[in-house]
Amino acid sequence: MKVTLINHTPMPEKMIVGAARVCYSGAKDLDTLLDSITEEKIVEFLGKSALANHGSVWEHATFTFGLEGVSRALTHQLVRHRIASYDQQSQRYVSAKQFEYVVPPKIAKNPEAKELFDKTMGDLQNTYDRLVELGIPKEDSRYVLPNACASRLICTMNVRSLMHFFGLRCCTRAQWEIRDMANQMLKICQEIAPKVFVAGANCEQLGYCPEGDMCCGRAPTMAKLLETYKGSK
Amino acid sequence: MKVTLINHTPMPEKMIVGAARVCYSGAKDLDTLLDSITEEKIVEFLGKSALANHGSVWEHATFTFGLEGVSRALTHQLVRHRIASYDQQSQRYVSAKQFEYVVPPKIAKNPEAKELFDKTMGDLQNTYDRLVELGIPKEDSRYVLPNACASRLICTMNVRSLMHFFGLRCCTRAQWEIRDMANQMLKICQEIAPKVFVAGANCEQLGYCPEGDMCCGRAPTMAKLLETYKGSK
Amino acid sequence: MKVTLINHTPMPEKMIVGAARVCYSGAKDLDTLLDSITEEKIVEFLGKSALANHGSVWEHATFTFGLEGVSRALTHQLVRHRIASYDQQSQRYVSAKQFEYVVPPKIAKNPEAKELFDKTMGDLQNTYDRLVELGIPKEDSRYVLPNACASRLICTMNVRSLMHFFGLRCCTRAQWEIRDMANQMLKICQEIAPKVFVAGANCEQLGYCPEGDMCCGRAPTMAKLLETYKGSK
Amino acid sequence: MKVTLINHTPMPEKMIVGAARVCYSGAKDLDTLLDSITEEKIVEFLGKSALANHGSVWEHATFTFGLEGVSRALTHQLVRHRIASYDQQSQRYVSAKQFEYVVPPKIAKNPEAKELFDKTMGDLQNTYDRLVELGIPKEDSRYVLPNACASRLICTMNVRSLMHFFGLRCCTRAQWEIRDMANQMLKICQEIAPKVFVAGANCEQLGYCPEGDMCCGRAPTMAKLLETYKGSK
Repeated sequence: MKVTLINHTPMPEKMIVGAARVCYSGAKDLDTLLDSITEEKIVEFLGKSALANHGSVWEHATFTFGLEGVSRALTHQLVRHRIASYDQQSQRYVSAKQFEYVVPPKIAKNPEAKELFDKTMGDLQNTYDRLVELGIPKEDSRYVLPNACASRLICTMNVRSLMHFFGLRCCTRAQWEIRDMANQMLKICQEIAPKVFVAGANCEQLGYCPEGDMCCGRAPTMAKLLETYKGSK
Repeated sequence: MKVTLINHTPMPEKMIVGAARVCYSGAKDLDTLLDSITEEKIVEFLGKSALANHGSVWEHATFTFGLEGVSRALTHQLVRHRIASYDQQSQRYVSAKQFEYVVPPKIAKNPEAKELFDKTMGDLQNTYDRLVELGIPKEDSRYVLPNACASRLICTMNVRSLMHFFGLRCCTRAQWEIRDMANQMLKICQEIAPKVFVAGANCEQLGYCPEGDMCCGRAPTMAKLLETYKGSK
Repeated sequence: MKVTLINHTPMPEKMIVGAARVCYSGAKDLDTLLDSITEEKIVEFLGKSALANHGSVWEHATFTFGLEGVSRALTHQLVRHRIASYDQQSQRYVSAKQFEYVVPPKIAKNPEAKELFDKTMGDLQNTYDRLVELGIPKEDSRYVLPNACASRLICTMNVRSLMHFFGLRCCTRAQWEIRDMANQMLKICQEIAPKVFVAGANCEQLGYCPEGDMCCGRAPTMAKLLETYKGSK
Repeated sequence: MKVTLINHTPMPEKMIVGAARVCYSGAKDLDTLLDSITEEKIVEFLGKSALANHGSVWEHATFTFGLEGVSRALTHQLVRHRIASYDQQSQRYVSAKQFEYVVPPKIAKNPEAKELFDKTMGDLQNTYDRLVELGIPKEDSRYVLPNACASRLICTMNVRSLMHFFGLRCCTRAQWEIRDMANQMLKICQEIAPKVFVAGANCEQLGYCPEGDMCCGRAPTMAKLLETYKGSK
């Protein structure tokens, strides 16, 4: 997997704080208002503002990622995030001869499974190639290609949508491959805008775990918090 | 493939015309306004209104489809339509033992390809089952499953989004499987709301083909229309 | 203000539970799966499922409201909810002669303010009428019309979007007019689908208040809950 | 009215062409692919690609505008464009003492109307101030404020959404104020990305007018084009 930041809105932190100040400031004009956004004001605003309270301001900065060597299992999950833009390598138009594939770690660690997995991938390559030889179009031959098949895409999300994505996909309950990717994306975002991207998984963003019975234990659930709160009174 | 209409907004045609009349009518109250929408008014409005002119009114009616026996190749395309709601059978949680699969017609018609395809599907089933036996979780074993693997989902779209979907996916350029599904969905919609769903592929909706060089010839391209128009003057 | 339910997806509760079961069930076909959704299963699912955990299933049911006698101040706020469909009476095309207007309760209770307010509305009507007489088009004459001016619209939202809307707009921090409307809409929804619409304002949905420093005290803030939780250990 | 470009994705043209090439290229890796996008390839791609054919690629570049001195009549229309992000000066929290206002040109050109209009604005300022003096909160006093009242907002749209916006709002049928603003925004976009923003109103983008009976005559309608085309055969 290769995660690259291809492009992003310049000065994302200033944009977010500026958008918030537009709503509440009586400043004479927008230039004056934006010029007055110092590093200190950014820290102050981003320190106390919760995403939930004023989500729209987080939409004025976007990040574009290049994502390579990710499985079609991952991309099928990824594109379910609808407030985002995607362009993905087409299996209808691009030939899959010599396709690369993703090996799940639990398979990689199990010698028998690994051998079977690799052999299967080789067989599928042969089948695909043979179907193409038989005159079957790429768009039909690809029906034999596995979920493991590596894909490449460009993905653009604004900060609000990224925070939602990280909330779900950096969570320990997320599937390992998309979680790995989400963590890499988060790390890159944190280098560009550390005051904005202060947390990943929902439990880090919210302070509690919203997964209920499926909670991994990293943070208390709401049920636990409320029980303790009621008990204290 | 099995396409079923599971649910839909009652009286979709009346809703659409009613929404349009809210914008332009000075009628005393909404009840009066809605009561006055006769079959004749529906015909008149839907006959001359183009979707492009007043798209929002088409959003007040939604249709929910059950889609079964469609390939993961199809569902990966389908969920790229973002103004829609999906819930799909999970390969992480639902076992794929005895998975069903979709055979592309061009493979079905080629005996050698068909034999190879079926054998491959059988091998993949065996590989999947063996990986599960070896203790590999379903969410990782599924990496060997093919695009052909049959899936099941529920999909809800409003009429505006459906018209956009039909415009692209009933087109002869669409991939055969999603085109087949789109045509079945369109037929069902036309039974419920024939005055709304008067056309499918973009060339039928627009009167010309927007596919440019890739035009199949069913309708003239814009370049052709403009050339003829200029030549006539 | 008059809030009317004009239309809604039939059987919203069954749709929501059905969508969830599609994801996790290995049932032979969709008909079998949907037929097996009993009243008991609805209670069980909706009782323990949190919106946050599986939001997509709440999108397969939509509600359409007629909203009349609401101010343009309200509608400008309302249409900021983007995952929704609106059609509103046009001030460009519909004449505002004899316009109705909304009186804020705090003005209604203050005799001097009330008199001034009513007089101003009367003056604005005269100004509007005079501008039209002078040949100024409706779309320009309306520039003198006040935020108080009553409007009428049709609004369609799915359940997920409604829950988000109620979370923010049933909150005591919401502006009084949109809060009044949100409460009326919630009450109507609860009559149709009581197992789905079990809560309104965010504090009721979440168990805590996400408004931070601006909390009204009806529910503890996250800071308070975490402080108590840490203190208990 | 003051329209300012506050921020935009760097290299919007390269991003758009890059996104398109991701879909169809078999290049070894993304870096190689993006590095190979020359000025010539941009011209070639953007010259022949129609927005309709591959809309998603236009979403990877966004533009953020500061909009000042625009009426609330305009902003109520603007925020109906839902694939966009807005933050607007609040009349609940920001005092409207000494509010500025927009004068429609047809009123400005009519001395009697202009005098009446200005007097009304002055009266409304006095009424607003008096209500605040009487202890009425800003959020209620604003109910007397007119549509003409000047507002300020920040607006972010991606290129696909901007093209849709320009298509409708640069059209001669659009209301004069939002059309004026759309034309200014388009001019600014054309300076940054001239190969992308080659056209404004729908008739310029499409080659024909989609407004049907309401066509202003700048471009032929589809009915006219098809009639000519049929006549020529």
